[in-house]
Amino acid sequence: MTTKQRFRVDELEGVDAYKLATGLIVPRPIGWIGTLSADGVPNVAPYSFFNVVSGLPPTFVFSPGRGGRKDTLDNVRAVGEFTVNVVTAEVAEAMNASSASFPPDVDEFEACGLTAVPSRSVRPPMVGECKANFECVVTQIVDIGHPDHGNALVIGEAVEIHVLDSLLDGTRVDQVELRAIGRHVGNSYSHATDLFDLTRPP
Amino acid sequence: MTTKQRFRVDELEGVDAYKLATGLIVPRPIGWIGTLSADGVPNVAPYSFFNVVSGLPPTFVFSPGRGGRKDTLDNVRAVGEFTVNVVTAEVAEAMNASSASFPPDVDEFEACGLTAVPSRSVRPPMVGECKANFECVVTQIVDIGHPDHGNALVIGEAVEIHVLDSLLDGTRVDQVELRAIGRHVGNSYSHATDLFDLTRPP
Repeated sequence: MTTKQRFRVDELEGVDAYKLATGLIVPRPIGWIGTLSADGVPNVAPYSFFNVVSGLPPTFVFSPGRGGRKDTLDNVRAVGEFTVNVVTAEVAEAMNASSASFPPDVDEFEACGLTAVPSRSVRPPMVGECKANFECVVTQIVDIGHPDHGNALVIGEAVEIHVLDSLLDGTRVDQVELRAIGRHVGNSYSHATDLFDLTRPP
Repeated sequence: MTTKQRFRVDELEGVDAYKLATGLIVPRPIGWIGTLSADGVPNVAPYSFFNVVSGLPPTFVFSPGRGGRKDTLDNVRAVGEFTVNVVTAEVAEAMNASSASFPPDVDEFEACGLTAVPSRSVRPPMVGECKANFECVVTQIVDIGHPDHGNALVIGEAVEIHVLDSLLDGTRVDQVELRAIGRHVGNSYSHATDLFDLTRPP
């Protein structure tokens, strides 16, 4: 094995810390987060600083960032609800288009040609084109990171789940039919198609 | 598009909520978490309720679970430090072996034939066989989920990063050479090898 390079985080520039973290922690699932502003404008944007972290109820975390583009954070603070829309190969281009910087008064569903489907139990809409959606309520917003490069971690719980019938065998989700994609570094993504099994030890 | 099935989370059994959440939120990166008990016994176990959530400093979240196997949570509460060891195809079998239920007094590095490499800035060791490692300090432990099925979310920040020279071009990580794997549902994993690019809109 070749030698390892050592980086002290307190000596790293922001861009380098970001490149190492996003290049090494892969593949990341993509949470395409639907929100609603206090004025009722729908927003949808993709985040890969995102995952499920508990099963019952399904509990999500995501970090929308504080600087620059922060409509999502403003919206979850104001409305306390969001949708998680599952990103698969079929909607990859639309997901990417929705990562553009739109002014806060633009309906990003409309701007990206997406169908805003009304949720059952929360106010933000779901992306109709997605194979599965979770309706979620915010339970906590936790400050993380340094004050100058600070960030917020949104924690929320699902109250409703919608899944295409054709993907389901009971509550088991067909991993081949799902066609999930994962996020890597820079412009890079992967198709999670090369599946294999490992039998969990006793 | 076929119709969607709707699940109300408050009507779901725990196993079904878990299967839907872990089947739909994929591929998940795997945090192979190294810890040390208050008595100094090293532990290493894989978690896919895990991700990076901020870039500077690299900030991690993971949810080790409260019930059953909870050595990792006890250890981070006692010692306040952990290592994140990056799981790639070469160490997939060893990672899986370390998910077995060992008694708390068993050194899991030794039991799984792994090299415990001393960290520079934290007490828990790193997995020497991994291509990259993060030394981390715990910043917060947040309670999540229902009391009966409750869980804890560990939040920590990297202080040192170690990466194989051969993977790096500056701080850019070669995604082909890395050979990361992602976690799916049940016994299922994927090789994140089918990479593609999407150019981020302006």
